[in-house]
Amino acid sequence: MLMIDRMIEQALQEDIHTGDITTKAVVPQRRPAEARLIAKEELVISGLEIAGRVFSQLNPEVKYSPHFSDGQRVGKGTVIATVQGDAADLLMGERVALNLLQRMCGIATLTSRFVAAISGTRARIVDTRKTTPGLREIEKYSVRVGGGINHRTGLYDGVLIKENHIAAAGGVGEAISRARAYIPHTLKIEIETETLAQVDEALAAGADIIMLDNMTLEEMRTAVLKIGGRALVEASGGVNLESVRAIAETGVDIISVGALTHSPRAMDISMLLD
Amino acid sequence: MLMIDRMIEQALQEDIHTGDITTKAVVPQRRPAEARLIAKEELVISGLEIAGRVFSQLNPEVKYSPHFSDGQRVGKGTVIATVQGDAADLLMGERVALNLLQRMCGIATLTSRFVAAISGTRARIVDTRKTTPGLREIEKYSVRVGGGINHRTGLYDGVLIKENHIAAAGGVGEAISRARAYIPHTLKIEIETETLAQVDEALAAGADIIMLDNMTLEEMRTAVLKIGGRALVEASGGVNLESVRAIAETGVDIISVGALTHSPRAMDISMLLD
Amino acid sequence: MLMIDRMIEQALQEDIHTGDITTKAVVPQRRPAEARLIAKEELVISGLEIAGRVFSQLNPEVKYSPHFSDGQRVGKGTVIATVQGDAADLLMGERVALNLLQRMCGIATLTSRFVAAISGTRARIVDTRKTTPGLREIEKYSVRVGGGINHRTGLYDGVLIKENHIAAAGGVGEAISRARAYIPHTLKIEIETETLAQVDEALAAGADIIMLDNMTLEEMRTAVLKIGGRALVEASGGVNLESVRAIAETGVDIISVGALTHSPRAMDISMLLD
Amino acid sequence: MLMIDRMIEQALQEDIHTGDITTKAVVPQRRPAEARLIAKEELVISGLEIAGRVFSQLNPEVKYSPHFSDGQRVGKGTVIATVQGDAADLLMGERVALNLLQRMCGIATLTSRFVAAISGTRARIVDTRKTTPGLREIEKYSVRVGGGINHRTGLYDGVLIKENHIAAAGGVGEAISRARAYIPHTLKIEIETETLAQVDEALAAGADIIMLDNMTLEEMRTAVLKIGGRALVEASGGVNLESVRAIAETGVDIISVGALTHSPRAMDISMLLD
Amino acid sequence: MLMIDRMIEQALQEDIHTGDITTKAVVPQRRPAEARLIAKEELVISGLEIAGRVFSQLNPEVKYSPHFSDGQRVGKGTVIATVQGDAADLLMGERVALNLLQRMCGIATLTSRFVAAISGTRARIVDTRKTTPGLREIEKYSVRVGGGINHRTGLYDGVLIKENHIAAAGGVGEAISRARAYIPHTLKIEIETETLAQVDEALAAGADIIMLDNMTLEEMRTAVLKIGGRALVEASGGVNLESVRAIAETGVDIISVGALTHSPRAMDISMLLD
Amino acid sequence: MLMIDRMIEQALQEDIHTGDITTKAVVPQRRPAEARLIAKEELVISGLEIAGRVFSQLNPEVKYSPHFSDGQRVGKGTVIATVQGDAADLLMGERVALNLLQRMCGIATLTSRFVAAISGTRARIVDTRKTTPGLREIEKYSVRVGGGINHRTGLYDGVLIKENHIAAAGGVGEAISRARAYIPHTLKIEIETETLAQVDEALAAGADIIMLDNMTLEEMRTAVLKIGGRALVEASGGVNLESVRAIAETGVDIISVGALTHSPRAMDISMLLD
Repeated sequence: MLMIDRMIEQALQEDIHTGDITTKAVVPQRRPAEARLIAKEELVISGLEIAGRVFSQLNPEVKYSPHFSDGQRVGKGTVIATVQGDAADLLMGERVALNLLQRMCGIATLTSRFVAAISGTRARIVDTRKTTPGLREIEKYSVRVGGGINHRTGLYDGVLIKENHIAAAGGVGEAISRARAYIPHTLKIEIETETLAQVDEALAAGADIIMLDNMTLEEMRTAVLKIGGRALVEASGGVNLESVRAIAETGVDIISVGALTHSPRAMDISMLLD
Repeated sequence: MLMIDRMIEQALQEDIHTGDITTKAVVPQRRPAEARLIAKEELVISGLEIAGRVFSQLNPEVKYSPHFSDGQRVGKGTVIATVQGDAADLLMGERVALNLLQRMCGIATLTSRFVAAISGTRARIVDTRKTTPGLREIEKYSVRVGGGINHRTGLYDGVLIKENHIAAAGGVGEAISRARAYIPHTLKIEIETETLAQVDEALAAGADIIMLDNMTLEEMRTAVLKIGGRALVEASGGVNLESVRAIAETGVDIISVGALTHSPRAMDISMLLD
Repeated sequence: MLMIDRMIEQALQEDIHTGDITTKAVVPQRRPAEARLIAKEELVISGLEIAGRVFSQLNPEVKYSPHFSDGQRVGKGTVIATVQGDAADLLMGERVALNLLQRMCGIATLTSRFVAAISGTRARIVDTRKTTPGLREIEKYSVRVGGGINHRTGLYDGVLIKENHIAAAGGVGEAISRARAYIPHTLKIEIETETLAQVDEALAAGADIIMLDNMTLEEMRTAVLKIGGRALVEASGGVNLESVRAIAETGVDIISVGALTHSPRAMDISMLLD
Repeated sequence: MLMIDRMIEQALQEDIHTGDITTKAVVPQRRPAEARLIAKEELVISGLEIAGRVFSQLNPEVKYSPHFSDGQRVGKGTVIATVQGDAADLLMGERVALNLLQRMCGIATLTSRFVAAISGTRARIVDTRKTTPGLREIEKYSVRVGGGINHRTGLYDGVLIKENHIAAAGGVGEAISRARAYIPHTLKIEIETETLAQVDEALAAGADIIMLDNMTLEEMRTAVLKIGGRALVEASGGVNLESVRAIAETGVDIISVGALTHSPRAMDISMLLD
Repeated sequence: MLMIDRMIEQALQEDIHTGDITTKAVVPQRRPAEARLIAKEELVISGLEIAGRVFSQLNPEVKYSPHFSDGQRVGKGTVIATVQGDAADLLMGERVALNLLQRMCGIATLTSRFVAAISGTRARIVDTRKTTPGLREIEKYSVRVGGGINHRTGLYDGVLIKENHIAAAGGVGEAISRARAYIPHTLKIEIETETLAQVDEALAAGADIIMLDNMTLEEMRTAVLKIGGRALVEASGGVNLESVRAIAETGVDIISVGALTHSPRAMDISMLLD
Repeated sequence: MLMIDRMIEQALQEDIHTGDITTKAVVPQRRPAEARLIAKEELVISGLEIAGRVFSQLNPEVKYSPHFSDGQRVGKGTVIATVQGDAADLLMGERVALNLLQRMCGIATLTSRFVAAISGTRARIVDTRKTTPGLREIEKYSVRVGGGINHRTGLYDGVLIKENHIAAAGGVGEAISRARAYIPHTLKIEIETETLAQVDEALAAGADIIMLDNMTLEEMRTAVLKIGGRALVEASGGVNLESVRAIAETGVDIISVGALTHSPRAMDISMLLD
């Protein structure tokens, strides 16, 4: 909450800075207005409450009424929220509110497509740290809204031992035991593997989560059998809407998809003043 | 410079926060390492110097060597920079550096495709305010790197009178004269038009720039002839790689493309430790 | 708005820091009081609403009632606002509110004298970047309140090519064409000239605004004739209340006056508790 | 130091924000240059080191060489510092450096005139809290540079009991005893008086400093005799260069002058690139 | 006020950061709850209003009702405040509120014990700069609440000349006269002495406050007699609850105790949801 | 790193604010000095590098030489670091450096005593969220230095389901399954139990960590047997140096101790200038 409000404040400063000179020059002061936010294409809503906070930061007297909750799917042409207040405030907040909302809906909508693609399997879709600098919190929120779950938030709240770490530590076993000795007991230990031999090592060392990085479907199936529930299994690398179902059907628990946050298409949403 | 450094600082805090626990737990202290940044697909470079500042913020002793300048096109597999320093610093900075670089290259590359699509015409590609909150400066920079030019940075440094402003002011002429009286004499006045009749009004009122919003090619051609060089002409709305050349050939001066910044695909770039 | 509120917050912190020890020690808690802000000399009001925000930042329950709008002229002894609230809040906010108000009224009043001095001519008074660090926004606002208009806000929202830039670029024409290629199409290009020959060059290169720097009245008249409306003409240098009318009568469009913001006399305003 | 560096950072951001577009567009990159800071009138130097920090914040590699120390008086035409570095950095820092320096020299020069006007008397010139919001530290510094001393920095580090406080507390004696019980033992207690009767009360109550507010010269002389060294005596109100010597000759210890900081004339200083 | 609110904001960010995942996951939204803050041992209350601001920062609609005022002593089991609001807000704010309150009550309670130990003497208990970084304001506040008074807040609002300063200045007299010439006239000058000879020097030089550092009781008695009311006398060094009364009985005015703020025991306070 | 540097910056501002007036007044400029940091009692070192950063923030040219590493135990009288630089910088940084160091060493030393008290058992000592607002990072670091391990950093990186959460969710099983569905798969789920019946429920629901809150030794032993390695077992409540060994001998994995961070005694460390 606090962090999102600061992000919104910075976004408003970025856009408005010393003032909206067009509006100040042209629009009479204290002119009441009403605007509608309209989905111009089918989408999964995310960020509808956050978009409202853009306007209330500008002026707490703006009345913002969301018509849906985050996570709902709406069709093209749907009015998703209305905003009432001083025309100047609506015009000043419009772009920042839309920039946030279009991106968040883009992520939720894309996530929902991945989730739908694997329905019926045991796998879950998770995000990565490939997020937009400064927006990680709302991007990971949008992944949840779209039906995915979150991987660690950052480097500080999860352990993911990669090849470079293993090499530096001198082996899988050593890396895992060092991690166990250092980290809070509340965190699981995940390790990245690229071969089935490494999967064996990770299992032997007691990894809680084993990532299968860029493995073939065949390798993934074998790994899932080997692991046999003794660790969570995460598939990673080269995941897209075409490939994701086959990956899910190998039996992995978790499939991480960078594109959810690094390359979503912004949904088309506009604001109309009446 | 100053603003970008603060953005990098925030991005690092977002990712690292209280510390990279994996690296702290697993990687021995003071272990020298070298890494290469590699383009995994053809792209136009943007942000290569900024990516280096991510590492130097973490530790001024990291040695970062870009092999190209922003604006250069490189092929798949090209090593675009090398980084030398403490392994922990390289691992901690990797994701933030890549998140910035992949996005910036995505924008520059996409922009370059639009620019190429209209080569030989008089038109220029410009961006919009549909940018990622917090990243406007580097996104607009990447548009320039890709061969485009920038529209106003925000609401504070350019005048763009839209339908809502015109309605509130009581007409095109009134809106323009109010703007003229208020704004610094150093700024031009741009006005959005949706019909040829509005183009006439805007011309009569002395607009410096006339935006043709969502007009047909035929309307654009007519507008360009009407205006006859007395104002800059900007085409806006529904511009994509398929439509942009025909729009350029109507004779407009400027074509604004929201997708450059709201929906670029992140370029595939990775960092390999040796 | 946002920036001004932060400036007020910093000003309050600067003055109050860990607390108003006199008031905390001496004044009983929750003692209602009323105060009047009084102009002790004739002045043009500027900042009356901003002064109120000083008190409302301290305590949103303070009731502040301005009796005039910015831009109005009042005589000596006029009560310009009343403030009601806890005595401690009034005493804590008094100095910051007055420091801002006295300075802003000083600028507006001085500007109004320059504006009056050129009444009937076509020229307009503009400010410069010679403002107080941290207060540019409210100082430029006060210039507008006093009847002037604003030059660019900073280095980022206007182009002013000076001698050093011309020398570095290798000539007037080269400098202007470089600027044209780089800057947003929404900005005009201004160039500083010191001789009539440079005016010719600037005209030939298509400058939008030509500054005549420290020219004689005779040179200015000649320049205005040469330019003949093809560019805006700005007079700059050595402008004071004695010289300004003669400069305006040369036919220039704009006269910039650094003293408006770098050396206004603070107006005498005091706050009286009843 | 720390606070001044932040103030400089904010001042640079205020002026440069997203970039000096003129310089970026027109001046070639990495062009070495040298500039001289020149006093265009006689003045007392203040802020010469601080002006240098403006440039070193922009780029630590700028070489800044002050030719004088703060407090020295220089004549018209004196080169007071030289700056060597990248032309772009010199051009970007010029205005902020001058805005600070011109104001600081203005205060030091004005203070030095007040100090000179009372030379030979026992009185000292002190400043007030009538400073520019955000600049109190450097303004009070400039008063010291000009030969004055500082009154309390803010509401937090000195006790000044005014009429309103006395009224709220229910009398001079009560106000002083409340203050004594609350404040650090390291602070003196000052009280404002408007009549000789109040001076008696203040003395009886054990005030450490007695301010004579807007008293006649005759009253001041009487008060000084009454007090007889048992408290410091401060004269306040209506002090200007014409009146200050007579006030000093009444025997007061301290004379506070608001104009030192609220209405100094900016000294004329310019920067020339070679 | 302002500074404390920022400290609370930082404390909340430190604890909550991207969100209270347990509460978000487990507790239904908008579930009203009521909680009681309970003293689990006898203590002097300090910070009860500040604890409430923790909750109101999270959500202004939380209703917080303190049952006591700071400075009151309560017994084990006393309900000291009630909090009503959304269960999620109560759970999120609990730890930060308690961490502040337990520490502040710890300081007030400890201070009250020192104050009680010297009751009947003329001495007063004061704090030092040995405070927790970031919490000085509320720690010094708690000392006042517990019946002590405050020494200078920091290096900026009081003069304390120590051995190193004396050595650097070249003697007691020189150090004091330098301080007198530089500092605001509103501040007293305190000097640290370790021997009776230094006390003589300090007296001769006109020190306002003389600190007796680590002297024996006998030396302190002698020093008090020597000084005879011409300066305040502060005892410092090795003060604890066992030694403090004897020190007070030497006749010193002030006894400074570092342990008040550097080593208080946190009082046991808990929050119970009903 | 970044966060600690900001904390140090704030601590310096808190103490120095507008300047160390004693040092500025009394100590000649540019006077080289050397100081030693000395342990006045036996202690475990923590924060020795951080203390150095206090001085280097003031002036990067200060030369700071730690003689030990964090985690080492030193005896009374040991010189633990030397500092060389300008006397003013050493005097200005002294208190902040010591305030941090004394607290951090206090925590590390106290933790080491708890760790020693349970040596030979399988249990480990962990901290809690009962830390000083603003200092959590360095306090948890000091616990690790003293031989403990860390519990979750805040509400954002660990799940701890308490009684209130269970009640709100409607039962242990429901609470755990809600958490499982929401949180990152990288986190374990901990649940607080107060009875053996709740332990059974927690086990059945698949908790990863079971906290035994305020149970008797007998209950703890029974719980450990019941759990039989299927979850980590944490003992909490009423732990002190007298009770901790018996608790460890019940077979629990983890013992959390709030006093480590809420009530450590500051170690006695001083700085001597030569």
